[in-house]
Amino acid sequence: MINEVRKKKPLIHCITNYVVANFQANGLLSLGASPVMGDEVEEVEELASIADALSLNIGTLNQRSVKSMILAGKAANQKGIPIVLDPVGAGATRYRLSVIEQILNEVKISALRCNTGEFAAIMRKDWAAKGVDAGEGDADISDLAVQAAKKFKLIVAVTGATDVITNGKVVHEIKSGHAIMSSVTGMGCLLSSVTAAFLTVEESADAVAKAMQFYGEAGERAAKVSLGPGSFKTAFIDTLFSLAESDLHKGGKLN
Amino acid sequence: MINEVRKKKPLIHCITNYVVANFQANGLLSLGASPVMGDEVEEVEELASIADALSLNIGTLNQRSVKSMILAGKAANQKGIPIVLDPVGAGATRYRLSVIEQILNEVKISALRCNTGEFAAIMRKDWAAKGVDAGEGDADISDLAVQAAKKFKLIVAVTGATDVITNGKVVHEIKSGHAIMSSVTGMGCLLSSVTAAFLTVEESADAVAKAMQFYGEAGERAAKVSLGPGSFKTAFIDTLFSLAESDLHKGGKLN
Amino acid sequence: MINEVRKKKPLIHCITNYVVANFQANGLLSLGASPVMGDEVEEVEELASIADALSLNIGTLNQRSVKSMILAGKAANQKGIPIVLDPVGAGATRYRLSVIEQILNEVKISALRCNTGEFAAIMRKDWAAKGVDAGEGDADISDLAVQAAKKFKLIVAVTGATDVITNGKVVHEIKSGHAIMSSVTGMGCLLSSVTAAFLTVEESADAVAKAMQFYGEAGERAAKVSLGPGSFKTAFIDTLFSLAESDLHKGGKLN
Repeated sequence: MINEVRKKKPLIHCITNYVVANFQANGLLSLGASPVMGDEVEEVEELASIADALSLNIGTLNQRSVKSMILAGKAANQKGIPIVLDPVGAGATRYRLSVIEQILNEVKISALRCNTGEFAAIMRKDWAAKGVDAGEGDADISDLAVQAAKKFKLIVAVTGATDVITNGKVVHEIKSGHAIMSSVTGMGCLLSSVTAAFLTVEESADAVAKAMQFYGEAGERAAKVSLGPGSFKTAFIDTLFSLAESDLHKGGKLN
Repeated sequence: MINEVRKKKPLIHCITNYVVANFQANGLLSLGASPVMGDEVEEVEELASIADALSLNIGTLNQRSVKSMILAGKAANQKGIPIVLDPVGAGATRYRLSVIEQILNEVKISALRCNTGEFAAIMRKDWAAKGVDAGEGDADISDLAVQAAKKFKLIVAVTGATDVITNGKVVHEIKSGHAIMSSVTGMGCLLSSVTAAFLTVEESADAVAKAMQFYGEAGERAAKVSLGPGSFKTAFIDTLFSLAESDLHKGGKLN
Repeated sequence: MINEVRKKKPLIHCITNYVVANFQANGLLSLGASPVMGDEVEEVEELASIADALSLNIGTLNQRSVKSMILAGKAANQKGIPIVLDPVGAGATRYRLSVIEQILNEVKISALRCNTGEFAAIMRKDWAAKGVDAGEGDADISDLAVQAAKKFKLIVAVTGATDVITNGKVVHEIKSGHAIMSSVTGMGCLLSSVTAAFLTVEESADAVAKAMQFYGEAGERAAKVSLGPGSFKTAFIDTLFSLAESDLHKGGKLN
């Protein structure tokens, strides 16, 4: 599917955090997509309306940028383009949880991409009475993901050592990537934007799974030529640029 | 001219976007200049007044930073230091076009540095009746640049495969750089700041042309030792640091 | 002490500037700490209250983030976790000096980490009548640092060719690092956060000195494998990841 992404060169409007904005923009460019970043209330609707997808990230949210996310989200819904929500640090503060709830209520999200901890935080809100906890293992995450996909009517992609992707019906599990990816800030944030790029080709759980597989494979390859997180980051951007569809492992990666 | 820049170590006040701020600061440091970044209304006049040049960039503009740009611009005009305006994404939203218009009206800009698409967007506003369009080729851009330089009373530098620099009288055309530069975010933004640094030595179209030539040469050299946009970015910063005046091509680059 | 830092994996809440946020986050991750960044008034108290240390940096301060710094600082004081203040560009504007004064008045800071110029600016405010100036040499800085430590009741760490660390009683002087570190933006900012990580193990001038020593050693090693500031930055992050306690020079570094 990376070939179609590169042919399309989708424009991804990112409302994102200032910690990873540079990495996210460079990752999208290397992949073959085109980032446009802007979070001013006055212009986000127009930015979203010229984009092929919208990527929302609450990493360094503030009251102004939350307003912009809602406005951009509604404009993107109006246009019918996919939206990926990355609920960074969901469990860290009540404010983040309330913003995630607001976004899920007011905007139709195509895919929720997060790590296990964030996902557990989002679901614990609803599931606390049942004692659901991120630490209970992959099986539970997979089960919870199906329930979340049905509840919120979106694709759920929870990434970690094993990535779980589901639309509430089919569940994909992918084991790929490399441990060093957790030592580089923004690896998840960039993945969310890459997911948005893949969704512009086809809005499906399969497209999300292919984004994860591509990304994980790039991580594995970059890790092989790296000395640490610094050189990994550089090699990873290079790999997003050069990794071809024909290079992807053919078997065993997608269950 | 790079020798004079390095001897002067000019302090460049950048009001810029959070996507490229790190790259821009590191690029200026590597070049031999010194960045100072700050966009709070309370302090931008004072920052501009201690600087040797001001670099304005609307990449992730908001209402607060626009106010700061105007205030800093007026302080810079008061002090008589050069100002470079980078109208990032000029054509993307009406808000951006209106902010560019406001800045050009209220602040005396020394040089407008942008890409072909942004330049066409700025000029289309005035030239729409004549059907001017970025797609019509280099000759038109060159002609338009002369007209823009006269109209706005500044140096125009439109960069692309061929860079066009003009003060409305003399036109420089430079073919340099490398295609991979368009796969790294902020290459244009940093160029605008580098231009500001060169203008502190001499406020002329010739100085701008020399900035473009130096930058393009650095890009060509960095591309030769790069595997992709990630390693290019690293090598480019290294090259800005090490490239000497005596290394620059002597002939054929400046028309 | 780096072993204890890595074992603890302290969570460092950074309210920092958008120029260096990415570098700071990656540096902390590479070191073995964990960054959380957020500057929204609505959530900073909660973020600080889940963190093991707070790192305040005024590099691109604005009225909103200053409010957040004060709120987070008070929450951190409430919890009893260490706070490091990095008064970036202290001397550049009156606004910065007034904000530093406000923070020092309203928040109990554990360590002030700055460069010689910033330190002189902060002290000149009080010491102008005595004509104290940064240019007067290391001896004066050392003396001034002791006075500042007593006056503000905190650890002072003034870094430069020679780092001076004092709690007002004991003075550590460390000569380490490499000149190229001054060509990379955020080297001081990241050091302040690394200092915060070390302080979570033990809140003492000795811990701050060990952070400086570790950081300087990493800089020396990274410089040896670098071609310029770009490759240095990458190698430095790699070195923060791989440098072991047993690799540190045993003698002559700490006076």
